[in-house]
Amino acid sequence: MSTIELNKRQEQIVQIVKDNGPITGESIADQLNLTRATLRPDLAILTMSGYLDARPRVGYYFTGKTGSQVLTDKIKKLQVKDFQSIPVVVAENVSVYDAIVTMFLEDVGTLFVVDQGSILVGVLSRKDLLRTSIGKQELSTIPVNIIMTRMPNITMCEREDSLIDVAQKLIEKQIDALPVVKLTEKGIEVIGRITKTNMTKALVSLAIDGLV
Amino acid sequence: MSTIELNKRQEQIVQIVKDNGPITGESIADQLNLTRATLRPDLAILTMSGYLDARPRVGYYFTGKTGSQVLTDKIKKLQVKDFQSIPVVVAENVSVYDAIVTMFLEDVGTLFVVDQGSILVGVLSRKDLLRTSIGKQELSTIPVNIIMTRMPNITMCEREDSLIDVAQKLIEKQIDALPVVKLTEKGIEVIGRITKTNMTKALVSLAIDGLV
Repeated sequence: MSTIELNKRQEQIVQIVKDNGPITGESIADQLNLTRATLRPDLAILTMSGYLDARPRVGYYFTGKTGSQVLTDKIKKLQVKDFQSIPVVVAENVSVYDAIVTMFLEDVGTLFVVDQGSILVGVLSRKDLLRTSIGKQELSTIPVNIIMTRMPNITMCEREDSLIDVAQKLIEKQIDALPVVKLTEKGIEVIGRITKTNMTKALVSLAIDGLV
Repeated sequence: MSTIELNKRQEQIVQIVKDNGPITGESIADQLNLTRATLRPDLAILTMSGYLDARPRVGYYFTGKTGSQVLTDKIKKLQVKDFQSIPVVVAENVSVYDAIVTMFLEDVGTLFVVDQGSILVGVLSRKDLLRTSIGKQELSTIPVNIIMTRMPNITMCEREDSLIDVAQKLIEKQIDALPVVKLTEKGIEVIGRITKTNMTKALVSLAIDGLV
């Protein structure tokens, strides 16, 4: 994969095809006062890069795709499974105090709450725990299922979901992480965790490895 | 700017030039049992896209630049100032309780602590506040300067810094945000805030607007 900048002549060609397409190579050459042979490499580049397409006996036409669209199409194909982390879960009867301790021990910002069958029943953010901790209650006596976000208000995603769609959900809903889930006969199982940290890592690997 | 995929013949050409360059167009054509004329569009594409370069009377040589390098160079040029948010600050004598309330009111995950001259003296994360809140002390009597991360342990950045460098710092240091600072005669002033949320937004705008 490569990135090219169009030269001035190629930009003129794109403009001519935009305005007059479908148009033959000869007609483009006429408008530019050049020979068909001179234009051949430019037309090859423009069709291979996806700006123009050509149909036999019809001519060149503008695809409507700009280069950055081709690029963004590739970024849009990134999937949750390529960037997700391991989930950290707690049982629904543990205390808020123990959940906070788990959060520090596991060094995560979001915990998922599961029932006895390992089915997702809630989500606990650092914000939820902080809000509770400034209340007047004794943290070791409040079970997490009193303060957690519960179904059906949990925003979830699946392994094959688009990373960018999930990034947009994190921003819109102002949350730090989503559970990556799998629907089984028993219910919704948590199989991963996708966070703003994962998104930051995706941005870095895009810059370093050019993973698109 | 556009993104192209090389076809099989173009990949063969790149390999031949890598192995034998500098090499003339005729010699490449010989190795592939093709005419020079047949190869002309491919060679034009490969030189324009930056894979190969050509010198008169010398021939084609491999530039060492792959397309994704050109792309990643562009991502690396993104700057903090294009994505930063407004900072939220508290005075160093406010209580931990008041800091937590400010964090909820302003809906941020990190507060910056400043002295009377508005100079940066500390940073408070949600994690710092949560850790303190499960202690036995009365939150409304502890001033934030007891628990904050203080100079010289604060990781900072400037408006013109590379966004990707800052993203890497957030990951390495496992923090959610950095203050964007400006050095003045009085000391270090906080002028912005750059967070994992900003990084997530950068990733999304890369996919949507193709801002590179």
